[in-house]
Formats: sequence, C-alpha cells, structure tokens
Amino acid sequence: MKKIRLGIIGCGNMGSQHYSNVLNGKCPEIDVTAIADINPDRLDWAQKTNSDYRAKSAEIPEVTLFSDASEMMKSGLIDAVLISVPHYKHPQYAIEAFRNGLHVMCEKPAGVYTLQVREMMAEADKHPELKFGMMFNQRTNCLYRKMKEIIDSGELGELRRSIWIITNWYRPQAYYDSGDWRATWAGEGGGVLLNQCPHNLDLWQWLCGMPVKVSAKMKFGKYHNIEVEDDVVATVEYANGAMGTFITTTADAPGTNRLEIVFDGGSLICEKNQLIYNKLGTKLSVFTFENESPYASPACKTEKVETDGLNEQHSGVLKAFAASILRNEPLVADGREGINGLTLSNAMHLSAWEGREIDLPFDEFRFKELLEERIKTSKAKENVKYVFSEFDKNHGNLCFL
Amino acid sequence: MKKIRLGIIGCGNMGSQHYSNVLNGKCPEIDVTAIADINPDRLDWAQKTNSDYRAKSAEIPEVTLFSDASEMMKSGLIDAVLISVPHYKHPQYAIEAFRNGLHVMCEKPAGVYTLQVREMMAEADKHPELKFGMMFNQRTNCLYRKMKEIIDSGELGELRRSIWIITNWYRPQAYYDSGDWRATWAGEGGGVLLNQCPHNLDLWQWLCGMPVKVSAKMKFGKYHNIEVEDDVVATVEYANGAMGTFITTTADAPGTNRLEIVFDGGSLICEKNQLIYNKLGTKLSVFTFENESPYASPACKTEKVETDGLNEQHSGVLKAFAASILRNEPLVADGREGINGLTLSNAMHLSAWEGREIDLPFDEFRFKELLEERIKTSKAKENVKYVFSEFDKNHGNLCFL
Repeated sequence: MKKIRLGIIGCGNMGSQHYSNVLNGKCPEIDVTAIADINPDRLDWAQKTNSDYRAKSAEIPEVTLFSDASEMMKSGLIDAVLISVPHYKHPQYAIEAFRNGLHVMCEKPAGVYTLQVREMMAEADKHPELKFGMMFNQRTNCLYRKMKEIIDSGELGELRRSIWIITNWYRPQAYYDSGDWRATWAGEGGGVLLNQCPHNLDLWQWLCGMPVKVSAKMKFGKYHNIEVEDDVVATVEYANGAMGTFITTTADAPGTNRLEIVFDGGSLICEKNQLIYNKLGTKLSVFTFENESPYASPACKTEKVETDGLNEQHSGVLKAFAASILRNEPLVADGREGINGLTLSNAMHLSAWEGREIDLPFDEFRFKELLEERIKTSKAKENVKYVFSEFDKNHGNLCFL
Repeated sequence: MKKIRLGIIGCGNMGSQHYSNVLNGKCPEIDVTAIADINPDRLDWAQKTNSDYRAKSAEIPEVTLFSDASEMMKSGLIDAVLISVPHYKHPQYAIEAFRNGLHVMCEKPAGVYTLQVREMMAEADKHPELKFGMMFNQRTNCLYRKMKEIIDSGELGELRRSIWIITNWYRPQAYYDSGDWRATWAGEGGGVLLNQCPHNLDLWQWLCGMPVKVSAKMKFGKYHNIEVEDDVVATVEYANGAMGTFITTTADAPGTNRLEIVFDGGSLICEKNQLIYNKLGTKLSVFTFENESPYASPACKTEKVETDGLNEQHSGVLKAFAASILRNEPLVADGREGINGLTLSNAMHLSAWEGREIDLPFDEFRFKELLEERIKTSKAKENVKYVFSEFDKNHGNLCFL
C-alpha cells in the first residue's frame, strides 16, 4: 500500500495531537516522516514518542527532525506538509510548501487577514497538481454533515434565518497565560473569533452560504486580561434579505452550542448532540398567503434525525487528504474555502472597530490597516506558563486548539 | 363582599375575552357594569352574552352599553376602566379616565411612542389615589416569576448575557387582513414589536433590567404584505457592558421561544415550558482568575427548576388590580412600567430607520418625527375580513391579541 510521507510544521498542542493520531493508526495511508519545530523541547518529545512507538511496531517509520521548516520542505523526505503553527504563519508556510511541490494541509484559521490568505490561494492556484486542504475537522461531524445533506437536497427551500449561539468555548485566564502569543493582536490577531470559532464560522457559511452584510458588537478583554475580543454578537444579512445571528464568547460556562437554521419549508436545530428537524406540511411562503384562518399555522412534523453516528474529526480530515493525493478523492474542505470564515471574522472585527455595518466584499486593506494599528501597541505576555500537548479533554465540541 | 365596578373600553378580540373571564367567575372581586365600543355589532354581542349569563346566574349584573367611552366614564356606573382599543388610543383614554377619577387597567403596549406614554404617566402621577396597571399577563407565568425570584435573590450575581429567541409568533396574511388598522403605521405604529412582543420586551427588561444602548436590524413587510416590521434582530448593551440579543418575527413556524440569561454565577434557560438552572460552584469572575489549569471550567450543577405551576394570565392581572384597589395589594405590573418595553421597541425602530446604535435615553422627538413621516404615507387596508372574539387557541404563550 502506497503511503503519503507527511511532514508536520509545528509540533505544539495541535501538531503533537496530529502526530499521535497517525502513530495510533488512525490514518493508515499516512506516515509522518519528518517534523519541524523551533522549540527543542518539542522535538525531544517527538523523538521520544517516535522511539516509543517504533519499539512497539516496526511499521512506524523513523522521523527526521528539523529546527527549520524550510529545510524540511527541501529535504525530499516528504510529499506533503501539515501546518500547525500560530495563525499568522499559515499562509507563508503554505506558499513555501507549494513552491517546493508539496501538498498542503493547513490548520484553521487560514490566516489572520484575508489579504494574506489571498496570496496563499493564488499560489495554490499555480499548482493545480497539488492538493490543498483546510483542517475543518468539524465538517466530519455526523450532525453537521446531515444538516448539509438535508439543506443541499433542496427540500427545505429558501433560507429564512440562522442563529448560532456558540458560547461553550469557556477559557480561564490560565489558558491565555499559557503562551505569550495568545490573545494578543501581534500573536494571534484576534480572540475567540480567530482561535475558537473558525470551525463554527466555516460550518455556518458551509450550511447557510456567505452573507452580504455583517454587523458586530464585541468586547475586548472584558472578562479576561487579554487584548482581543472575548465576547461577540454579530448580525448578518444574506443576499435574499434573510438575517443571521452569531453569538460567541470564552467567558460563559457551561455555555451553549445551539444552531438553528430556518427555511421556507421548516427548520433544523442542532443542540446537545441532537439534530431536530421541524418539517412543514406546506411551505411558509405558500401557507402564509393561501390559508384563510387568521391564527392558523402550517402543519409541522418534528423529528429527531438519525445520522450515521460517525465523527472522525482530525484523523478523518487527514485520511481524506491522503485519499485525495493518492486517488483524487474529495477533501473534507478545500483550502480555498478557508477564506470564507475568515472573511466573516475580519468583517466582524471591522464592523466593531468602525461601529458600522460592513458590506461584503469588504475593504480588506482597511482591515489590515486597523489590525496593524493594534499590532503596533500589542504586548507579548510575560510570565507565561507554556502548555505542551495538553488537550481540551472536557470539550464536547472536539475542537482542539 | 365589595366588588369593583369595571367598564371595558373596546370589546373586540381582547376586550370580549376579558369580559368572558369575568363572567366565568375568574375575577370574583370584579363586576363588569359597563362596556363601550364604537362598533354596534360588538355591543350586540356584549348584550347577548350578558343576557345569556344572567339567565344562568342572578349574581351577574346588568351591563350598560355605550357607543361613546367618554359617556361611560362620566356615567357614575364604574370605578375603573379596562382599556382594550388599538394601541394609539391607550394613553388618551387612560388620561381621560384618571381625570374622571377612575382606576385604570391598560392593555399593552402602553402606547405607540414614548412621548404619549409620558403624558399618560404624568396624569397618573397627579392621581396617586388611583391605581394604574398594565396588562402584562405574562408576568403571572410561573416560569418567568421563578426566574425573577432567583435573579432578585442575588445568588446568580451580575448579568453577563441575555438572549431571547422569540420567533413563535407566526401570523399568516389572513391575520393581517383581519383589520384595516393592523400592521399599518397609522393604525398600529409598528409590527411584531408593537403587537406581539410587548410582553416579551416587558419581561426582558423586568428580568434583565434596561440596557443603555440598542441596535436593531429589521425587515418591513418582508414575509407579509404589510407596512411594518415582521422580522427583527436587536442587540443591546447593559450598563455593565454585558450584551443582549432579541430575535423575533411573525414569519417562522413552528418558531422558537428560548430565553437564556447568563450571570456570573450560572445561567437560566427557559424553553419548552421548562426552566433550566445551571448553577456554578464558583463564580466565573473568581474561577477565571484563580484556577490554574488552562482548560478547566467551574463545576456546574444543572437542574430543572420546580415552580408553583400557576399561570393565571389575564384574569390574574385583573384579580390583582381589584385587590390593589380594594386592599392596596401589589399590582402585577404598575402602569408606569409600560414605558420600558416601549422604549426598547421605539429605540429598535429608530436604530433600524437610522442605521445606527441608539443610546438610551433616546431622542423621543426624533422617533415621533420619523414615525409621523411613515404615518403620512400609511394606507389602511382594503377588503379586510374582521375577526371578532377569535382567540389564538394554538398559542403556547397564552399571549392573546
């Protein structure tokens, strides 16, 4: 069986998790043959982990370690890279990988601002022979896949409303103090929207499409000692005039994850690991005008939707990436789609900074200018306690970072 | 037993319901001794209904009918009035009643614009001996009363977020076509915010307090052939910087009624006739800074809250009104509190019309000016099919109008 030789750029919290998944046999068509990290402790961890696994199985290949990702990309030891470094550097490594003839799987978000992501997309387009995937592991969740399937079938008709309350991203101050780059304008370029919500923003646009207008109110460091936003309420408008709402924070506990999408023919509500389908007997646009009784409503059948129960998450995305390289099978998420969620997040920031509604496409140069103003006065945190390979075990979302 | 002699101004959909409640013995300290309506059909209904009930019980008093409310107020036949006419006329009748020495129970909303409600409040203040109540019947709901009790106990601490998705106010076009005044700027002065949501806006401010900033996006006649709003997304900010969201429409079915209020010490979620209480072991403001583990959350105990199960609605408000007049017991809602929900609704309209966030207190003259512009081009509907004494039997909210 042919395998993809994967190199991991960044073996921190997330990169080490990916490596463990592969070592544990969750991605049978992938060998991790190289790892690059600027932190020697992380390379030590990778070396030790590799030795431990090789002692148990001869099929595990040796891993070559690099302190410089560029050297790894030129080494000839890998076919593809998995980029799991802080957000700002996603595009530059992706671009370099494409130029070295490597397939690219990039962690979310695609970048911090859309202009840099456009450069990455342009480079990807110059290499149509190379696969480019984005680590939108939540798209593998059976509930969201089922929603997508029902929506794409067309049976629900036109979008009428979307509301995502995604406030179960609680983070204590200790989380923010676990890295000097965390929750700074210079290090992350944003807060809950850039770090926790890229999955939700991606799923939102994947299921509902991109809006044409974005308004947001947000609070910066309201509930934590951080520079960036930890509380967001955004309202969007779609091309057909339907409105959507997105509410998120890292300040609530236990918090809520409830996605409601209303259509002409009924609604889908995803909450507490259940998908509820309210299916109307008559479409609203028809019933509203044809019914003659002032207080009548269309008949509605409410059911809990069955799914296939599968939720492969990160390893599912990597498996599809390998299958895409080897047999041209579909990716879970094309890397080029990464700009959509980031566009939402950038537009929300711009709206909050300027106190006005933003039309899409928005002024991406203006966004970058305002971000750079914030970066200038941004301060890296002191006395941080680094966290290595600790995962968010308690999190029902299975969205690690 | 001493009874209050009540006169009903307006015996349409809502007034006839109140009369039926009293006739059916739901308000033992009230006799309806007079009814005024400009519509002879309604007076005929009242006469016939009165006769029918008197035939069964000698205790039911005769009702005197008036085609002119002013005459009824001067008749000496009543101690108090219940005003259930279209919204614009609430303040003028209340003022006239006070000047005639009558206690006043006013249907919601208090009026259409706050300036007219201020006149009503000023007149009420000139008559401290007269009781002034607002028909906020939802305040009698055991779930909302329980929420109020828990919040007022202080155990939850400071407000952190509020979200009310109240989209189960579906109305077909036939509803709007049931009165020529309905859903017109001249006849109602607004849509879902003025007609269906006064209860929700009142409860929202009753439970969470009044915000200091209001932003709203709304759609006018998007899903119905009407002049006014049938789709609203509003975001507010409280004095402590916490944010709130209010989403409503008459276009969704089956729709959602889900109220979530988050505090420093936990959250309350009211949905599907249940109240869920997430109570944290440690307040967020403490845990966030004292805990040392990056991915930890405060311990949380989730419970379904028991209530007394009582939900007297309209008759409960009227009973308390009588008890207030007879024995100075507390009203369910003081009439002066009616301005709060209307302030929210007026500020939402102003925000949507002007496309900007509105600070409270807001420019009430500007609101009136913009409303009057709309009234000038407002058209009463033609070919209406009047609905008489038909109630919203299917509505779980028990909020009739």
